[in-house]
Amino acid sequence: MRKNVPTTILVLQNDGSFLRDVPFSGLAPFVGDPGARVWIDLLEPEMADYDALQEVFHFHPLAIEDCHSNIQRPKIDDYGSYVFMTFHGLNLAEGKDPLEMVELDLFLSTNYLVTVRYDRLYSIREVQERVQKNPEILHRGPDVVLHAVIDRMVDYYFDLLQRLDEEMDGVEERLFAGATRSVLQEILDFKRRVMALRRVAGPQREIMNQIARGDCRMIQEGTRYYYRDVHDHLLRIADSLDAYRDMIGTAMDTYMTLLSNRTNDIMKVLSIIATIMLPLSLITGFFGMNFQKFPGLDNPYGIWAVVGAMLVVAGIMLAYFRRKGWL
Amino acid sequence: MRKNVPTTILVLQNDGSFLRDVPFSGLAPFVGDPGARVWIDLLEPEMADYDALQEVFHFHPLAIEDCHSNIQRPKIDDYGSYVFMTFHGLNLAEGKDPLEMVELDLFLSTNYLVTVRYDRLYSIREVQERVQKNPEILHRGPDVVLHAVIDRMVDYYFDLLQRLDEEMDGVEERLFAGATRSVLQEILDFKRRVMALRRVAGPQREIMNQIARGDCRMIQEGTRYYYRDVHDHLLRIADSLDAYRDMIGTAMDTYMTLLSNRTNDIMKVLSIIATIMLPLSLITGFFGMNFQKFPGLDNPYGIWAVVGAMLVVAGIMLAYFRRKGWL
Amino acid sequence: MRKNVPTTILVLQNDGSFLRDVPFSGLAPFVGDPGARVWIDLLEPEMADYDALQEVFHFHPLAIEDCHSNIQRPKIDDYGSYVFMTFHGLNLAEGKDPLEMVELDLFLSTNYLVTVRYDRLYSIREVQERVQKNPEILHRGPDVVLHAVIDRMVDYYFDLLQRLDEEMDGVEERLFAGATRSVLQEILDFKRRVMALRRVAGPQREIMNQIARGDCRMIQEGTRYYYRDVHDHLLRIADSLDAYRDMIGTAMDTYMTLLSNRTNDIMKVLSIIATIMLPLSLITGFFGMNFQKFPGLDNPYGIWAVVGAMLVVAGIMLAYFRRKGWL
Amino acid sequence: MRKNVPTTILVLQNDGSFLRDVPFSGLAPFVGDPGARVWIDLLEPEMADYDALQEVFHFHPLAIEDCHSNIQRPKIDDYGSYVFMTFHGLNLAEGKDPLEMVELDLFLSTNYLVTVRYDRLYSIREVQERVQKNPEILHRGPDVVLHAVIDRMVDYYFDLLQRLDEEMDGVEERLFAGATRSVLQEILDFKRRVMALRRVAGPQREIMNQIARGDCRMIQEGTRYYYRDVHDHLLRIADSLDAYRDMIGTAMDTYMTLLSNRTNDIMKVLSIIATIMLPLSLITGFFGMNFQKFPGLDNPYGIWAVVGAMLVVAGIMLAYFRRKGWL
Amino acid sequence: MRKNVPTTILVLQNDGSFLRDVPFSGLAPFVGDPGARVWIDLLEPEMADYDALQEVFHFHPLAIEDCHSNIQRPKIDDYGSYVFMTFHGLNLAEGKDPLEMVELDLFLSTNYLVTVRYDRLYSIREVQERVQKNPEILHRGPDVVLHAVIDRMVDYYFDLLQRLDEEMDGVEERLFAGATRSVLQEILDFKRRVMALRRVAGPQREIMNQIARGDCRMIQEGTRYYYRDVHDHLLRIADSLDAYRDMIGTAMDTYMTLLSNRTNDIMKVLSIIATIMLPLSLITGFFGMNFQKFPGLDNPYGIWAVVGAMLVVAGIMLAYFRRKGWL
Repeated sequence: MRKNVPTTILVLQNDGSFLRDVPFSGLAPFVGDPGARVWIDLLEPEMADYDALQEVFHFHPLAIEDCHSNIQRPKIDDYGSYVFMTFHGLNLAEGKDPLEMVELDLFLSTNYLVTVRYDRLYSIREVQERVQKNPEILHRGPDVVLHAVIDRMVDYYFDLLQRLDEEMDGVEERLFAGATRSVLQEILDFKRRVMALRRVAGPQREIMNQIARGDCRMIQEGTRYYYRDVHDHLLRIADSLDAYRDMIGTAMDTYMTLLSNRTNDIMKVLSIIATIMLPLSLITGFFGMNFQKFPGLDNPYGIWAVVGAMLVVAGIMLAYFRRKGWL
Repeated sequence: MRKNVPTTILVLQNDGSFLRDVPFSGLAPFVGDPGARVWIDLLEPEMADYDALQEVFHFHPLAIEDCHSNIQRPKIDDYGSYVFMTFHGLNLAEGKDPLEMVELDLFLSTNYLVTVRYDRLYSIREVQERVQKNPEILHRGPDVVLHAVIDRMVDYYFDLLQRLDEEMDGVEERLFAGATRSVLQEILDFKRRVMALRRVAGPQREIMNQIARGDCRMIQEGTRYYYRDVHDHLLRIADSLDAYRDMIGTAMDTYMTLLSNRTNDIMKVLSIIATIMLPLSLITGFFGMNFQKFPGLDNPYGIWAVVGAMLVVAGIMLAYFRRKGWL
Repeated sequence: MRKNVPTTILVLQNDGSFLRDVPFSGLAPFVGDPGARVWIDLLEPEMADYDALQEVFHFHPLAIEDCHSNIQRPKIDDYGSYVFMTFHGLNLAEGKDPLEMVELDLFLSTNYLVTVRYDRLYSIREVQERVQKNPEILHRGPDVVLHAVIDRMVDYYFDLLQRLDEEMDGVEERLFAGATRSVLQEILDFKRRVMALRRVAGPQREIMNQIARGDCRMIQEGTRYYYRDVHDHLLRIADSLDAYRDMIGTAMDTYMTLLSNRTNDIMKVLSIIATIMLPLSLITGFFGMNFQKFPGLDNPYGIWAVVGAMLVVAGIMLAYFRRKGWL
Repeated sequence: MRKNVPTTILVLQNDGSFLRDVPFSGLAPFVGDPGARVWIDLLEPEMADYDALQEVFHFHPLAIEDCHSNIQRPKIDDYGSYVFMTFHGLNLAEGKDPLEMVELDLFLSTNYLVTVRYDRLYSIREVQERVQKNPEILHRGPDVVLHAVIDRMVDYYFDLLQRLDEEMDGVEERLFAGATRSVLQEILDFKRRVMALRRVAGPQREIMNQIARGDCRMIQEGTRYYYRDVHDHLLRIADSLDAYRDMIGTAMDTYMTLLSNRTNDIMKVLSIIATIMLPLSLITGFFGMNFQKFPGLDNPYGIWAVVGAMLVVAGIMLAYFRRKGWL
Repeated sequence: MRKNVPTTILVLQNDGSFLRDVPFSGLAPFVGDPGARVWIDLLEPEMADYDALQEVFHFHPLAIEDCHSNIQRPKIDDYGSYVFMTFHGLNLAEGKDPLEMVELDLFLSTNYLVTVRYDRLYSIREVQERVQKNPEILHRGPDVVLHAVIDRMVDYYFDLLQRLDEEMDGVEERLFAGATRSVLQEILDFKRRVMALRRVAGPQREIMNQIARGDCRMIQEGTRYYYRDVHDHLLRIADSLDAYRDMIGTAMDTYMTLLSNRTNDIMKVLSIIATIMLPLSLITGFFGMNFQKFPGLDNPYGIWAVVGAMLVVAGIMLAYFRRKGWL
């Protein structure tokens, strides 16, 4: 029945013996034994895999449907004997859009954890390796394993914040260097990404809060401290994202202000040039008129008088601008 | 007493036999039998239909009045032995305003469901067909039938979001292509529609939340999971609408900014042209004056000296602009 | 003791007999009889009326003081054996400011209702007429009478919303026709009125909510459905007012944007004209210089060469503007 | 021990006899007698006064420290056998900044009230005079006296609102008369004052709400109605301040809009003049060129043809502007 | 085992004897004795110090990890027999960035206090000196010592507010003196700092509120009054920061408005000059045309007629501007 999909099944028996890649058909006894621990990780499962899963666990059809579809919003649903959760992780692989989120759906009970995803998640792989080296972690409970996974996922958020921080600094620098249209586009891009992250981080934090408060029976008393710690991390991330949003708002305002500043500068130059040149042009135009009788035109020093008058006019204008503070 | 209105009455008797188009006058025994299931759907009912309805069900006059009038706001009112709800659906038929909402008023009790509407609703028709093919659905309870209807209605919202998404992309593209007045009108239109949708989606979500929490006695324990699922869908829709609102706000800001950018560009061109041309014109005007004694005018190379001076002035101006970063 | 003020006193005795205009001095027995029903309506009462009132009812001095003064904010105060409320109604008489609100102060107990106001209120008069035609309404309780009054008052709000709706449409139309200063003033006026209505509607809704929830012992269980209905109406009014506020905000933004748009258009025309004319003027100025030796001036085709050059310059400029998208 | 500071001590003995200016050293018996009533008012107390106070009342050092310092934020602290409160009053004396607030610190217990302040407060003086005329007020309890004081303080707020109202009207009028820089400064000043008032009124209202709800054991059941009344007044003040804030926001927007309007007008005039004059100047420049062979210059009607052409050009321009709606 | 790090260990034995610099290895008996009091202050601890700490106190690994890392957000975590808190203090040393915050991590139990920090904190040193002079403070409980430390830390915030206040005044003055780009940068800098302070002050206040409400078992009943006092101080700080934020928003708006004002002024000057000069230039250009037959050119008073016409045109223009209110 099992195809060649990358499903990882880790089982820790009641007597402490550790099994890998148990077939689905052999899982039932372990799942029924409260002393055993089972972690099943499905990567890109197909319908046949879900059917096999259902034979063992009898999950609610709504939860299975949520695994299929891309549901975009973190949530926690209590189905009595197990809870269904959805989280979103980042991979931050080189050469990928750092904001491409991977949805992780999971079923958590007191003795098993089923994780389902449709893309690579480093955090899952890292914890799998840790568990295989030290099955003791699995023995401490599926909630401990889940914490390890989520903790790693949240760590990747901090890496992303680090990157965003550097980017924001760059944007602000470029902004003061010149309020160009490409900077505007950069700011808007930045905003879109921060908004997307906020939309995921908010509900995620809310879920962690519920768990930390002890609303979820699947999490042991002693493990809740660790979930509270994750909640604190998510609070800090939310703080940072709020700070970014404020900064972006300020950056947009600054952009507009700098633009107005520049329009103002341009207007000033135009005004100064025009205000000096137009009167002088009027003077030259005046003496360019072809009246036959034009007093002064025959005066040998007339041209010098005009030059003098022009200098005086220009001087008055400059003095006016200096008084206005435009020079 | 019954006129030829498109009223559909589906009854599932206690013994599992399924009846269609039972007359109003024969409904009372089924309504009184807790084992029977009744679904009455009224399309564009008139006063006579309401009177017939009242004879069987004795609904509160306020609820009947709410059916008549267009109440625009989703709500849930508990009248003891039944609840009255109002929802809004979309039809998304081709060639219609995709946001034209159809109000669905309904009465839900433990063994009957009465739906009232004044326009076509695909979701109702689809579920009616499903029930007629498989009366088992009706047997599971009127709350299950209602979930099926609402679930379809919410699915249509997602279709609308899909359309809005594409439209938003188009608007943003056209915006960066040119901040014209028609783009502004498009943004404002878009905003109006998102706002209208938000106003309906918010209370609808609130009602689903109440049902999912178990505040409504007419919904069976097992069916509540399904209503929680609808609530999750409405949460995602609300998230999307919030995201759209943010995007629209950003689009308006971007519009203003691009407009300022363009005014700035225009000013720059005007300033550069005027700042170069005005001094040169002054020079030509100067030598156009008709003084009889004008040193240099009789110099055979005077004209070349002036041309040279003009080039120097223009060069200085251009250098100044380059230093200012305007070129 | 009673003066000729338009006070209306309606009494329904325990035995069902209906009395009109009982003097204050004869009220005490009815008020003391839980089976009787009393509705006193005071229009523009003076101190003597209040004194007469106090002799019968012994209301708290603070509540009486609230009747005197114009308190502007809806409220509900529980004084143990009676509650004091303040509402605001509209009259919408022709030729009056439709937003001029009339304050209605009232005392409600289990068997009497005292309404006090300083201006006409159609809703009061309508209900008075209804009660006189059918004293049965009064028999059902003073809370039922009060609901009738408030229900009518809220209906008038809807009439006002209708008017505002039409006005808003007109404003938006005129706005797109031209962003003139009078449209701005219209928008600001509209805003002021919506804000004033919001300030009254908000607390009013809150009070209805308290009553609908059953916080007020003077309202019978069965009547609460009707108050919940009024609460729903006020919720819809609040939704509409929020929608108007959003629209006004958008209208202000649109105004600014259209204004910027027009400044931009004007700048464009100015720039195009100046950018074409200034270089051409420079050319004509150049050949207007009076140098004695000026190559080309004696060329018989010189003038045509200059005309050609001017056409070329103008053509280049026009091509530049077309490329910039300004034409 | 007592210095010549303006401390007023009013004592109403258990047997109804009224004493003034009892020395601190003789207060202890009255304070210890639950039937006696004591009101001590300290104006600008020094350390020695506090020491004398402490000998009798043993207040908490933190509360005494709060009396010394200017704490700016209304608050209520419960210290078990007494409560410590801080309020802020206005004096509105002629020729003073109407917003200069006077902090009133006070200790309230079941049989004594201690008020401390560092400036004149009319409300305190008025109530002192009333108590001395009618010691009965003091007999009804220190909470009744306190209500009288606070009620007067809140009344002064209404006087201030009255003034602000007139001022706001003036500002709006001057704004529409001309968006000058001094109007901007006025608006900003107005905003600062409303913000300062808001910051005090908010917590004050919150405290009154606590008292009205019955959270403070020092306030008798029957007096709470009066505090609820003060709470209502503060709610109305908060409403008014919110309304002012909205108005100021609108005024700022209007200022910007009117300014843009004027820039737009100026641009329009400039554009019209330049767009008409520049082409005409080009024409005159054209015929001012000194080509020897210039067709038309020797035509005796040439000058009239040019004048005609100029009129035609100007006419076309004016028609264009009229079509654009600029004239 | 102990290295030469500046760790201060103060122990007050059950019998009242005071010990300094007890080695870690000797601490266990004091920690186990509920009558003893221990305060350990670690400055820049290394792993070995944490190991020594753990041997005595067995703190939760998550809390120890929080000590290592810079967690930026104040918090309080209850670990049963002790609480872990994080606060942030300012040092305000001369020549340092006044906003550089020092994180203080601490463990509080009923008989010991452990403070951990990675930088100097004046408030810690001051309280240490006070305790060494008067060990009685330590006797009153570690919560009293902690209050002393936090109280000093909050006092430093007020010093910072004082500085910010002066700075804000300076910024506003410079703003009205001239809306230059450096003022904009100052405003933005100011905003960034206020935002950073807000982000720390908010959670800090929340923690103090929890303690003042009595949620923390490690704080004695009598000491809670003092924490409530700190909470009040933090409320006032939050009020001030909100006020600054509003002021900054207003300053930004004012900046934009003043800039628009100046652009408007510049436009006005340009328009006046251009509008007067261009028609006059047209006149001079007109009479500069070289038509052979030009009526008036041979008129000996023609020149004077033209001068007169120019004065009339200029006069009309000036009158027009005066009427427009531009002069």
